[in-house]
Amino acid sequence: MLFLSEQEMWQSVTLEDVMDAIEDAYAIHKSGNYKMPDRFIAQRDKNMMLYMPCFLDSVIGTKMLSEFPDNPSLGIPYLNGLMILNNAKTGLPKAIMNGSALTAMRTGAVGGVALRYLAPEDAASVGLVGCGMQGLHQLLYACEVRPITDIYLYDAYAKDLSGFIERLLARLASFGKNAIQIHTCADTRELAEHSRVLISATQAVDPVYPDDEELLRGKCFVAIGSWRPERRELPDAVWKLVKNAYTELPYACEESGDLKIPLEKGVLTQERVHFIEDLIEDTKQGHPHEQNETRCFKSVGMGLFDVRTAQLIYEKALDKGIGQKLNF
Amino acid sequence: MLFLSEQEMWQSVTLEDVMDAIEDAYAIHKSGNYKMPDRFIAQRDKNMMLYMPCFLDSVIGTKMLSEFPDNPSLGIPYLNGLMILNNAKTGLPKAIMNGSALTAMRTGAVGGVALRYLAPEDAASVGLVGCGMQGLHQLLYACEVRPITDIYLYDAYAKDLSGFIERLLARLASFGKNAIQIHTCADTRELAEHSRVLISATQAVDPVYPDDEELLRGKCFVAIGSWRPERRELPDAVWKLVKNAYTELPYACEESGDLKIPLEKGVLTQERVHFIEDLIEDTKQGHPHEQNETRCFKSVGMGLFDVRTAQLIYEKALDKGIGQKLNF
Repeated sequence: MLFLSEQEMWQSVTLEDVMDAIEDAYAIHKSGNYKMPDRFIAQRDKNMMLYMPCFLDSVIGTKMLSEFPDNPSLGIPYLNGLMILNNAKTGLPKAIMNGSALTAMRTGAVGGVALRYLAPEDAASVGLVGCGMQGLHQLLYACEVRPITDIYLYDAYAKDLSGFIERLLARLASFGKNAIQIHTCADTRELAEHSRVLISATQAVDPVYPDDEELLRGKCFVAIGSWRPERRELPDAVWKLVKNAYTELPYACEESGDLKIPLEKGVLTQERVHFIEDLIEDTKQGHPHEQNETRCFKSVGMGLFDVRTAQLIYEKALDKGIGQKLNF
Repeated sequence: MLFLSEQEMWQSVTLEDVMDAIEDAYAIHKSGNYKMPDRFIAQRDKNMMLYMPCFLDSVIGTKMLSEFPDNPSLGIPYLNGLMILNNAKTGLPKAIMNGSALTAMRTGAVGGVALRYLAPEDAASVGLVGCGMQGLHQLLYACEVRPITDIYLYDAYAKDLSGFIERLLARLASFGKNAIQIHTCADTRELAEHSRVLISATQAVDPVYPDDEELLRGKCFVAIGSWRPERRELPDAVWKLVKNAYTELPYACEESGDLKIPLEKGVLTQERVHFIEDLIEDTKQGHPHEQNETRCFKSVGMGLFDVRTAQLIYEKALDKGIGQKLNF
């Protein structure tokens, strides 16, 4: 059995590797050759343990996360956990890795893959609303897939973004990206004015951007936060501008207020909601990328991303001799 | 974070330690200060992953087991897994250990604790029906709590018990027990004739002992197998002989055919079913042990046993500097 720390996980793979794993996960999802039960939640008071199993033909993965709301007040991340891989033929455990690192890594890559297929090839600016762990990883992948020269930041709660910028610059530098300029914005209007790609990674209840079609026209949106039915990050203007809404799964229309609320209001219609796995396959078969000027991807995630990404990390780590071998 | 292999787990604790942990688990169960959700099963075809979380005030534990029916034909145990401990205040993972080793260790200790309170003080002989991993561990604890000089073995499927006997003798010797005689029996009648304590650890559908009151009178029964509603290990004669039936939980009367079937037939009545945690508390408060000549404990297990045992192993391992430290 192999154990991989956060650092060892990043040593094992490239950003491109992780995005390829996400594309594989979409292909597996499209093939139907998997079993992904509903996640299971065990709760005591406000603290939760979440268990997310997923069976592939080649491996079984379980992401086990804890969500403890009081952690941030103790200086500890809200979300922590482990990813466990089991042999698909025997059930024997084969790898354990850092589950919160995996979550950030694969969620960033899900955003990156969406930009591969939705963002203009020459997009050089990206704006981020919500400067946390998830947002940081979104930016790493955005800078990998497009020739980004400028990053714009806004956070409704963090007044001082210097710590975030320091971490971001260090991580960008570790991927050889040393010339990107970072700018902080006073509000999301300023952010949107400057950014071709707009990423939101917040727990916002109400839309984070002004509901202004002229401001938002021609942007490429990636929304990965606020996945509850009563919350949303995107204003109605986005749905008026885009031809298609892209997401991963039918249940996103129920689970995410970003789709559920505009569908209920009639600003978005069900036939305009498409699955990005279909766009990826179409594009690979030579059909053109999404051509509308304003584009949008809403992510709710799925366990398949975790297990396929973890499997790739495990295989690459084995190849490179990275990680601690555990005698079971 | 600490990782403990099967060998390191056994190095960390004594048999008495584990039985004390089981008695603590009963006391916690009686106090109500815990949260133990129903176990969660994820299944693909005939293979199952089981997740058994349990929150104590001091720690959170999750036993994660795989049950792969084809494993024995590959020479691999049917059941494998991990036990994971998380900090109760922050949810951060703190220990990972071998889950199947923990299961055998604590199930053996559950049997051992039952014998502490039910078996005659001078019981010198024990019979085991079902010579597998669980049965072997039952014998280790039985020999710890009573002055056993003779072990009698029977297995309906294994014709050659020499491998089992070799492993059993080695394990007994590791606990300083070198003078115990091992005997194999042609059937369970012969086994019961020679044994004061009778332990069954099988997947039997029908009772494993002859339905003969004269044969079974005065014995102390521990039944840990066949926990499904349609299966049982104990014949009606046992319920006619005992004053009380001891088990752990009310749901045992639904889940275990050993209680459900005789209750439905009227051979056993609900008011004669008692919880061993009450017997333990009564005995500790100075009331006499169960005095009836024939005694019986039916175990169905509970997640509380796993988490309390794993917590003790973790603490003892930390004290002794045993285990692999993992950089998370």
